[in-house]
Amino acid sequence: MKKIVKNLTNIFKPKSVAIIGASPTPNKIGNVILRNFIDNKFEGKIIPVNPKHDNISDLRCYSSVTEVPGKIDCVIIATPAETVPQIIEECCRRKVGGIVILSGGFEEVGRMELAQKIKELATASEIPVIGPNCLGVYNPYTKVDSIFLPGYKLQRPKPGSIAFISQSGAVGSTVMDLSAHYGLGISKFISYGNATVLDESDYLEFLLNDKETEAIILYLEGAKEGRKLLETMKKVNKTKPIIALKAGKGAGAQAAAKSHTGNIAGAYMAYQAAFKQAKVIEAGGINELFNFVKIFNQPKAKGRRVGVITNGGGIGVLTADAIEAEGLELAQFSDATKAELKKILPAYGNVGNPLDLVADADVNGYDKSIAAMMNDPNIDVLVVIVLLQTPPVDERVIHVLSKYVDERKKPIITISIGGAYTEAYRKILESKGVPSYNSEKAAIKALERFVTYGKYQESIRKSE
Amino acid sequence: MKKIVKNLTNIFKPKSVAIIGASPTPNKIGNVILRNFIDNKFEGKIIPVNPKHDNISDLRCYSSVTEVPGKIDCVIIATPAETVPQIIEECCRRKVGGIVILSGGFEEVGRMELAQKIKELATASEIPVIGPNCLGVYNPYTKVDSIFLPGYKLQRPKPGSIAFISQSGAVGSTVMDLSAHYGLGISKFISYGNATVLDESDYLEFLLNDKETEAIILYLEGAKEGRKLLETMKKVNKTKPIIALKAGKGAGAQAAAKSHTGNIAGAYMAYQAAFKQAKVIEAGGINELFNFVKIFNQPKAKGRRVGVITNGGGIGVLTADAIEAEGLELAQFSDATKAELKKILPAYGNVGNPLDLVADADVNGYDKSIAAMMNDPNIDVLVVIVLLQTPPVDERVIHVLSKYVDERKKPIITISIGGAYTEAYRKILESKGVPSYNSEKAAIKALERFVTYGKYQESIRKSE
Repeated sequence: MKKIVKNLTNIFKPKSVAIIGASPTPNKIGNVILRNFIDNKFEGKIIPVNPKHDNISDLRCYSSVTEVPGKIDCVIIATPAETVPQIIEECCRRKVGGIVILSGGFEEVGRMELAQKIKELATASEIPVIGPNCLGVYNPYTKVDSIFLPGYKLQRPKPGSIAFISQSGAVGSTVMDLSAHYGLGISKFISYGNATVLDESDYLEFLLNDKETEAIILYLEGAKEGRKLLETMKKVNKTKPIIALKAGKGAGAQAAAKSHTGNIAGAYMAYQAAFKQAKVIEAGGINELFNFVKIFNQPKAKGRRVGVITNGGGIGVLTADAIEAEGLELAQFSDATKAELKKILPAYGNVGNPLDLVADADVNGYDKSIAAMMNDPNIDVLVVIVLLQTPPVDERVIHVLSKYVDERKKPIITISIGGAYTEAYRKILESKGVPSYNSEKAAIKALERFVTYGKYQESIRKSE
Repeated sequence: MKKIVKNLTNIFKPKSVAIIGASPTPNKIGNVILRNFIDNKFEGKIIPVNPKHDNISDLRCYSSVTEVPGKIDCVIIATPAETVPQIIEECCRRKVGGIVILSGGFEEVGRMELAQKIKELATASEIPVIGPNCLGVYNPYTKVDSIFLPGYKLQRPKPGSIAFISQSGAVGSTVMDLSAHYGLGISKFISYGNATVLDESDYLEFLLNDKETEAIILYLEGAKEGRKLLETMKKVNKTKPIIALKAGKGAGAQAAAKSHTGNIAGAYMAYQAAFKQAKVIEAGGINELFNFVKIFNQPKAKGRRVGVITNGGGIGVLTADAIEAEGLELAQFSDATKAELKKILPAYGNVGNPLDLVADADVNGYDKSIAAMMNDPNIDVLVVIVLLQTPPVDERVIHVLSKYVDERKKPIITISIGGAYTEAYRKILESKGVPSYNSEKAAIKALERFVTYGKYQESIRKSE
């Protein structure tokens, strides 16, 4: 790994953070960021920098980085574009560990000379620079948080194992907000904007070696170096699954991308081919990024044969449709399983796949039928549909589902569709590590990607 | 319209309702239904029927319908299958207005003789029968509610203009729950199960003449009479849009459908061809039913040219992708609009479509840019992306968006993606009649169906 990439650690695990453009005025970017560090009880040194103030929030404020005594691991810049090159120059002289530039007004509005200056300075000093024109970084483990959106509007996710790399701040932050909402943990968030110094490939490379990261989400509009991206994706995706969303597919969308992060979106077909070659999982929209990644906390599937349990016949039929449409298989239960299930069902019930427990099903019925399917060698994956609206389904369903998820014998996903009551339960399930979907189509699509990736990893192991 | 179909009014607007199998035991089906009528303050007469009780919840309880004095408009049956034929016989003798059979255990478990008996009796007396093996009906206007799922688990939607016909109780009830959750109003809910006496075509025919219904959602697994369904869909869909979801597409799913409502699911391709011929809008899953229908409260679009406003560049690009993928067009703004928008944007902003107001945008920026697009003859439809997480976007956004929706000059839909804060705002927007989506792909797909249907209706008007 290149030294400049390795140095990203200075940004994610800093002992000291300088905030250039720190401000005492509420809602100003420089204030939101300063408050992030203070309110989240960042354990290192917090250094506000702003020539207009001597003191902000009881912290000594410096007029420039050159005035700050001691080592500076991470610098976050939130000042106008034209001031940035000089600040970078000072940072290089001061030998800071790494820099995050949030400010916009560079390549995306045609000011190439400003961008070029930054690139030259940082590269020469081997100082990693994230941005400019971005939301920067969030690390829930160390509380580094340059996201200038208030916490009550944009929840921050808990620590976990999923990393997000996003060229767009808006896309990255909404996926973060969704993750926090459903209790999904993340390892690192990187919103990298114009990619002036480091690009998506560098971040992938960094995350490959990051112990806290197990799966990676990538949103990109246009890569600067296509070949480098392909090779990096190939390498990283062998060990850690990459779920990628490419935006700027059509002509109109490409024009929009250009004025967004200053990058040429490039022919979609080339990206699609690269994803295919690297076996990267391609998402078709924001919600798919989120839907696809959250199943990767499950143990690997041995095959494509799915057992389905439901308490709503119609949703079972729709799920069976989705399974067949996605090229997964409805498992054929073993005779032992059939005999077991027959005991659970009411007299008029049919043992089939999907197994329809009918609306009378209580949590006990779920418990027994999941146990039977867990023991059936003909079933690789379980899809448990629980319509939480029926009277006999009570809160014990949380215990039963998380019990089987914790056992890690086979992958399980759940589907529950409904309003306020259902959504409240889904949040609890997700927070207990049970993947929960509010759409049968989305659930099965995610399952297919998960099963196919598992098979790919297995094929690598066998060929090695 | 056949008399038996017309008589469905007796079920939806009854002056008296008899509940066969009424029970004093909480959570029993016969108790949940009785409580629905009492708790929702049904204005007509509520008549519990159960030979084991003289009195339930302070209401006189009768041993059978034959004992009940006076007219009975609607009978709801929640007793075991084998008791049902005799009850129907008594209902025919008593000349009741209409019957809803909730009980299961008929065609779907092979007991054809029971079903046949019901069909003969009801048809001879021209008494409409909904079911058996279903959730029955819900009419928010008259508070008729045979849904045996408690209100705290399954919210009931408010009165509105959308009707749901669902072969599956589970699918119908989850869509209802979602509708209630997001404040979408419905006119009638019909869960019809085995379709022993009346089928989906009869319900469509009934709803065509129902003044409260403006759009219809149809979930079906297998129609008994394909030709009849095609002709009815053709006729109804000319006036009121039908959004249909066909389940049981593959072999495995078809087997599941058979044991679910006793109907043969039939070749999917035939249904697909029928939907196409009748210009019915086909949904691909439960969430699409809900996503597609909620845009139909908007005024008709003049064409396919879409103007997009966003405060998040990346989500603008993804939305542009979706617009191009769905065959809609990104509008070319008129010069007057461009000049107007230039004034709204910051100095470094680009006037493009999507119009990126950038994260600094406040509600005023939205107000002015929507106004400019409303006046542009080159724009047919507006898609307003509001990332609610940014500091300058405050609650005035509700007022501005609902103001333009209320003006009804052009259709508007909104996209907001995020966690708890965003979801709370989306609920308010929906309750004010502003279609709100939490997925850019889902939003644009719905928009395309809406625009295409509008064009179809226009072509009918022109040819007439």
